[in-house]
Amino acid sequence: MIMNKPLSLLAVITGLCIAFLHHPLGAQTAMDADSNQAIFSEQDLAIARSLRAQGLEGNGGFDVVEELTTLIGPRLAGSPADAQAVEWAKAYLEKEGFDRVWLEPATFPTWHRNMEKATIVSPVEREMVTLALGFSPATPEGGVRAEVVMLDDYEALEAVDASQVEGKIIFVRNRMERARDGAGYGPAVRARSLGARIAAEKGAVAYVIRSIGTSTNRFAHTGSQRFDVGVRSLPAVAISNPDADQLERVMGLGEPVAMHIEVDAEFVESYTSHNVIAEITGAKYPDQVVAIGAHLDSWDVGTGALDDGAGIGIVTEAGRLIKSLDQRPDRSIHIIFFAAEEIGLWGGRAWAEKNKDNFHAIQVGAESDFGAGPIYEIRAKVSDEAKPVIRAIAEELAPLGIEFGGWGAWGGPDFRPAGAYGMAAIDLRQDGANYFDYHHTENDTLDKINPENMVQNASAYAVLAWLSAQSPVGFGSGPDLIGSN
Amino acid sequence: MIMNKPLSLLAVITGLCIAFLHHPLGAQTAMDADSNQAIFSEQDLAIARSLRAQGLEGNGGFDVVEELTTLIGPRLAGSPADAQAVEWAKAYLEKEGFDRVWLEPATFPTWHRNMEKATIVSPVEREMVTLALGFSPATPEGGVRAEVVMLDDYEALEAVDASQVEGKIIFVRNRMERARDGAGYGPAVRARSLGARIAAEKGAVAYVIRSIGTSTNRFAHTGSQRFDVGVRSLPAVAISNPDADQLERVMGLGEPVAMHIEVDAEFVESYTSHNVIAEITGAKYPDQVVAIGAHLDSWDVGTGALDDGAGIGIVTEAGRLIKSLDQRPDRSIHIIFFAAEEIGLWGGRAWAEKNKDNFHAIQVGAESDFGAGPIYEIRAKVSDEAKPVIRAIAEELAPLGIEFGGWGAWGGPDFRPAGAYGMAAIDLRQDGANYFDYHHTENDTLDKINPENMVQNASAYAVLAWLSAQSPVGFGSGPDLIGSN
Repeated sequence: MIMNKPLSLLAVITGLCIAFLHHPLGAQTAMDADSNQAIFSEQDLAIARSLRAQGLEGNGGFDVVEELTTLIGPRLAGSPADAQAVEWAKAYLEKEGFDRVWLEPATFPTWHRNMEKATIVSPVEREMVTLALGFSPATPEGGVRAEVVMLDDYEALEAVDASQVEGKIIFVRNRMERARDGAGYGPAVRARSLGARIAAEKGAVAYVIRSIGTSTNRFAHTGSQRFDVGVRSLPAVAISNPDADQLERVMGLGEPVAMHIEVDAEFVESYTSHNVIAEITGAKYPDQVVAIGAHLDSWDVGTGALDDGAGIGIVTEAGRLIKSLDQRPDRSIHIIFFAAEEIGLWGGRAWAEKNKDNFHAIQVGAESDFGAGPIYEIRAKVSDEAKPVIRAIAEELAPLGIEFGGWGAWGGPDFRPAGAYGMAAIDLRQDGANYFDYHHTENDTLDKINPENMVQNASAYAVLAWLSAQSPVGFGSGPDLIGSN
Repeated sequence: MIMNKPLSLLAVITGLCIAFLHHPLGAQTAMDADSNQAIFSEQDLAIARSLRAQGLEGNGGFDVVEELTTLIGPRLAGSPADAQAVEWAKAYLEKEGFDRVWLEPATFPTWHRNMEKATIVSPVEREMVTLALGFSPATPEGGVRAEVVMLDDYEALEAVDASQVEGKIIFVRNRMERARDGAGYGPAVRARSLGARIAAEKGAVAYVIRSIGTSTNRFAHTGSQRFDVGVRSLPAVAISNPDADQLERVMGLGEPVAMHIEVDAEFVESYTSHNVIAEITGAKYPDQVVAIGAHLDSWDVGTGALDDGAGIGIVTEAGRLIKSLDQRPDRSIHIIFFAAEEIGLWGGRAWAEKNKDNFHAIQVGAESDFGAGPIYEIRAKVSDEAKPVIRAIAEELAPLGIEFGGWGAWGGPDFRPAGAYGMAAIDLRQDGANYFDYHHTENDTLDKINPENMVQNASAYAVLAWLSAQSPVGFGSGPDLIGSN
């Protein structure tokens, strides 16, 4: 879908005016606020601004996510579609003419669902919309049937006495709160990622959660559970939020409530997929790398459009914009499509391990993995020496409606493992107020993406990657940044 | 859920002020605009206003739909849940203390689904979210697989040459438009109600439509097809709107597209369910009847909360409000829970047949069957003599934000068969802009109801029923109204 060009230009002009009028640092654009010396050359800044404008006239990479979701669709790590997606990605990036495109292996345990069913059987009968959680073991054939004990949240689960839940099905009803920055996810998701193993310790027979999601649409939200070999867990499912409401109402009738839970799913000990990496080779420092990424895998429901097809589109478009310049960046830029994020950040782990002795050469990592909402803020974890550079980059992002949000960043989920090695990181924080309406559901499909926002995102990543590659100083990746955030 | 009382009172006061300031007939409240003679007694008007205020302080019947959807859930006409719902309704209305509660039989053919599946099999593979349409025959076991022919709409289906579609699966992609009054439904729904039989005539092997609904959520919208004994039809399914988008994109790849369709469903020749009727017996003219209704049955997906549990709650609450008055209405008021609306208006047909020699005694019929949106307009089909009465009723509804919308009404789907006998009808038209986001889907659940709007609806139905029962004149049901609308 191509954006209306006159409107896009208008948006740029309006953005510039707003920045000029309201931005506190407007008068010293791209100057070090302390020394007032230029950080970037005039030419590098002109290119950054040209990338920004060209980005706004492009399609933000919507064509990429459209093709990925149309041709491949859902692509659970370890599934045949995962392999197809890797093949597609490599061919796609080669066709786009990047300097180098290659695969790096990532090996991980995986899992697939065959079926799941959750039914209230007493005192009323009601089939619920449900999805098994990642790595849920199967129930015995025919399922399990038991009385339900309802608990408020993860803390209540930790606190409950085993005698209260032994032989029972535990239902944790905690609700995720909506927030622009997704802050409601962390507190709520522990019930999903860690609950079943605790329920198992306490002798329950199955584990049910209210979906970790903000929508009242009748979709269950799946998602991963922490998986450790040898740790006993339980059949675990999420029910849709309207079904959780119904279960609460039925619990409120005051009679014992029984459910039947059936899961058939299979654990796969080891599968090897691949990170797919495209390079724009740096002209001056080809071994120094600005890494922008997204993850190629998705859950097995929906088509992984917001999570994370949008990110794949955004970083690809950013790469295309830079690649089409007459001038090469000083440092190399890597566009990384990570493998197996959803089931344990396995692509990110493999990448961090591969580069563990080389992080001094990784200028910075930044991943787009929060849907297709507009970016409102840049945050960074860099050395003190690099902070003026980040401020200068922020100035160039301001016309896109992006503010400087302070120090402290993680780079996104697939760069989290690199944090252990002290990688410098930048977060371009997106408005995710609606992201968890669709996250990990059947409803994460292409139509949920607003291409206009992708355009803003791609523009921002292009500016970010370009200026990071042209920075007069390194961002400080290495031991000194370990432990900071 | 009980409404906040101070807020509700404020709403009444605000409504009154707005009506006073803006309503063109504000100066002649409840007076015949021509003669200036009072239409209703001061006492009847005072009671109407008291009902209106009490209605706004109640819960609009939310407790009724909450209990119905919690205890019974989906209740397809002819299913075991249908019988449970009838039993529940009779007991509920008796418990509420109406003067009489009774059942009237309605016999109809019905149908139930066992499973359905729609998959794009070439050139990509993709399982689609789908629901069989009502009265769809089963496919041969194992389903049918054929090339897909895409058509724009019902007219294109009528026009297409049989040679183009013989042996093929027809996909009709017409999109329903969103509108406050649901005006987009009529033009779009022909593709659902009549398409499969035309596809059968032209030699197609299965029939697929884009869902008749306005949401982009990934739910298929089921619904009835016209059913006539002996008319050949085809296995027919609706796919969700995002899946229809996907199918269009795949068609756009330019290669032949094949689908696999499998439906297992059973036709039931004859089942008898019941309309459930509660009466507030009239003090002066007990044999004259003001009929307000809703339908008790629902589709087999979702829990029939908006369609039509909300209506059941609204008319029950209206009845409760009137029943709790010290004074009896002059005419009787009937609260009718109709049977088997979804699969062919069978309760409405039975009621019309039962009363066919008696329509002179039916003052008026009005059904609530458009979800839980606020009422914005009253329209009426009545004799000329009764028109000043309707205008006077409209004056009493104005403080609820309801305007007089002109002459012409049908009374709602279950009163449509009574139209053939010239029944006077009133439409309290609701804002249905979002109604077709949920209509006939898994997603029609209790949380989609805004109880505040139910309160306004119930208040309006109470005022309407009361004043219709106190009218100095009959509304003209009978031969003279046949053919008018």
